[in-house]
Amino acid sequence: MSAATLPAEIRLVEQLAGLFSRSPVQCNARHEADAELVRLPGSATVLAITTDAISEEIASGLYADLDLIGWMTVLVNASDLAAVGAEPLGLVLNQTLPPKMPPADVERLQRGVAAASGAAGLSVLGGDTNFGPSLHMGATAIGLVTDGRLLTRRGAAPGDLLFASAPLGLGGAFAFARFAGGAIDPPAFRPQPRLAHGRLVRRYASCCMDTSDGVMTTLHELSRLNDVGFALDRPLGELLHPEAAAVARAAGLPLPLLLAGPHGEFELLFTLPREVVTECLRAAAMLGWEPLALGHVTTGAGLRIGTGRDSVALDAGAIREAYHDTGGDLDRYRAKLTELMGPASR
Amino acid sequence: MSAATLPAEIRLVEQLAGLFSRSPVQCNARHEADAELVRLPGSATVLAITTDAISEEIASGLYADLDLIGWMTVLVNASDLAAVGAEPLGLVLNQTLPPKMPPADVERLQRGVAAASGAAGLSVLGGDTNFGPSLHMGATAIGLVTDGRLLTRRGAAPGDLLFASAPLGLGGAFAFARFAGGAIDPPAFRPQPRLAHGRLVRRYASCCMDTSDGVMTTLHELSRLNDVGFALDRPLGELLHPEAAAVARAAGLPLPLLLAGPHGEFELLFTLPREVVTECLRAAAMLGWEPLALGHVTTGAGLRIGTGRDSVALDAGAIREAYHDTGGDLDRYRAKLTELMGPASR
Repeated sequence: MSAATLPAEIRLVEQLAGLFSRSPVQCNARHEADAELVRLPGSATVLAITTDAISEEIASGLYADLDLIGWMTVLVNASDLAAVGAEPLGLVLNQTLPPKMPPADVERLQRGVAAASGAAGLSVLGGDTNFGPSLHMGATAIGLVTDGRLLTRRGAAPGDLLFASAPLGLGGAFAFARFAGGAIDPPAFRPQPRLAHGRLVRRYASCCMDTSDGVMTTLHELSRLNDVGFALDRPLGELLHPEAAAVARAAGLPLPLLLAGPHGEFELLFTLPREVVTECLRAAAMLGWEPLALGHVTTGAGLRIGTGRDSVALDAGAIREAYHDTGGDLDRYRAKLTELMGPASR
Repeated sequence: MSAATLPAEIRLVEQLAGLFSRSPVQCNARHEADAELVRLPGSATVLAITTDAISEEIASGLYADLDLIGWMTVLVNASDLAAVGAEPLGLVLNQTLPPKMPPADVERLQRGVAAASGAAGLSVLGGDTNFGPSLHMGATAIGLVTDGRLLTRRGAAPGDLLFASAPLGLGGAFAFARFAGGAIDPPAFRPQPRLAHGRLVRRYASCCMDTSDGVMTTLHELSRLNDVGFALDRPLGELLHPEAAAVARAAGLPLPLLLAGPHGEFELLFTLPREVVTECLRAAAMLGWEPLALGHVTTGAGLRIGTGRDSVALDAGAIREAYHDTGGDLDRYRAKLTELMGPASR
């Protein structure tokens, strides 16, 4: 893929990072893992480091409930550690609070942080609190990979099977309902940390990435990095979370659009070589977890969705860029997505 | 010290952190080290983790030059790693850029980051870039302590000698000149990472803290944590950076006020038990470094400044709170500081 056809946010990172020298102990190249993987000098231990803020989600009003904002501050980072199969070590918080934020609001925010911190096993080690005109929340989380193989976004090969950690679409349904101006009740949205799932996946998977930016963007990125395509050949109704599908039906939103938007459900997508599928699913069952089969990896780039002769090809790159290209206008974005999804949106 | 008399920012952190459970592998208590120290399970290695943003310095106009903003984004974090004597491992950036920031400005910012990253040996491992109405820059830096003792803010004992890594006052002089409305030329301000100094200090010192928040705040915090006092008994003219003193003289600013403000010079303050002073200074000389003797640790709380019968007692706690107490108004703040410094300001 030439530089000109790279997604906008990848081009930006390349521009920003072009001046920096690379660390000799970093295991992953840029974009190639959900967390930065750094081997400790003279040790087998690899640190997994990720940093993510939710300032845009707060500024846009997507996240308004303070308990959810606190939860997501931790969860977005826990999700990145999960996608590299790391043990959680801890996190530091980056907060900017409005100076006049009522103490009860500060407490609700921190209760959300504490709840997700406990759920993820990511102790709050410290942080930095500033004051400014608008609320800004972010964190840096650190995990450990002390043995076994590394898990990154690279390694998928044609023929591998594609799985998700759980049914999809809640992130899209939540965003759609939140921005629909009160006409639709949002589904409950409280993504769970998938760290135990990720550690299991690391033993078997050829690649893994979380759906923080939506399923289509995740598949497009995995396609780009691995020079493969994907066929989502399972009936769509079986891939979607029931509450997400209910929101789409109530709103007259084509079901595939739940997978297309830039706000995801923070599940893991991963690929398994066929020879390890049985063993991985057996190990997952012992965790009480049933990974969701989505489809398989194909040769060449491209994304197909649907079964057999009803399947259609989608331009995942254009879908990924549609939000940016329509300037964030929801009606234009929905129309553009419907056009790009073509027959798949009917 | 009772909760009611704790400094405002310490009270805030206590309130924010009260809901969080502590990590069993964290070596330091809250506030007791410039970086969080976390022992890797089953290992002798301790991670040093720090996160710091410069959003307030950008918002106030204190840092306006993009090259300096980039530099300080890294430096404030490198300085915390230095104060615990860690080896630098790398950092992740947290950036919020205005969407219409000209590419040449983005490049100047990143060149500042790259320069400090190179100077500190802190590779940029990755980061998170968002877009928002105003520029926000922060980072999380990670270092390693693989052997020897830990260095924290705790451990000073009466009789220990107090040192600084270099002459002081440039942070205060820079802030004063920047906010004086163009009447005074600011001194060159480009703090250097003190990581090599910190690693040496860790072998000898009883405590260490950087002066990121100014010398008085640093001494007050060390006093509070160690239940000791400090006597700065060296003539003030010998403690101050010549350029800082020149700014103060040009502006009619009493010299001790250069040490009182909340913007520091990012040097290390550390205490040495008398029996290791000679050996430490000999080791420092081999680095081409001459630590600056400031005074000594005293019994009881309190800060004295000046020599012999001319020395005066200062209320470092009140000086620390003065900026907050005067609502950031520069004239009121200067008057309040002058009052608090009493005879020392003449």
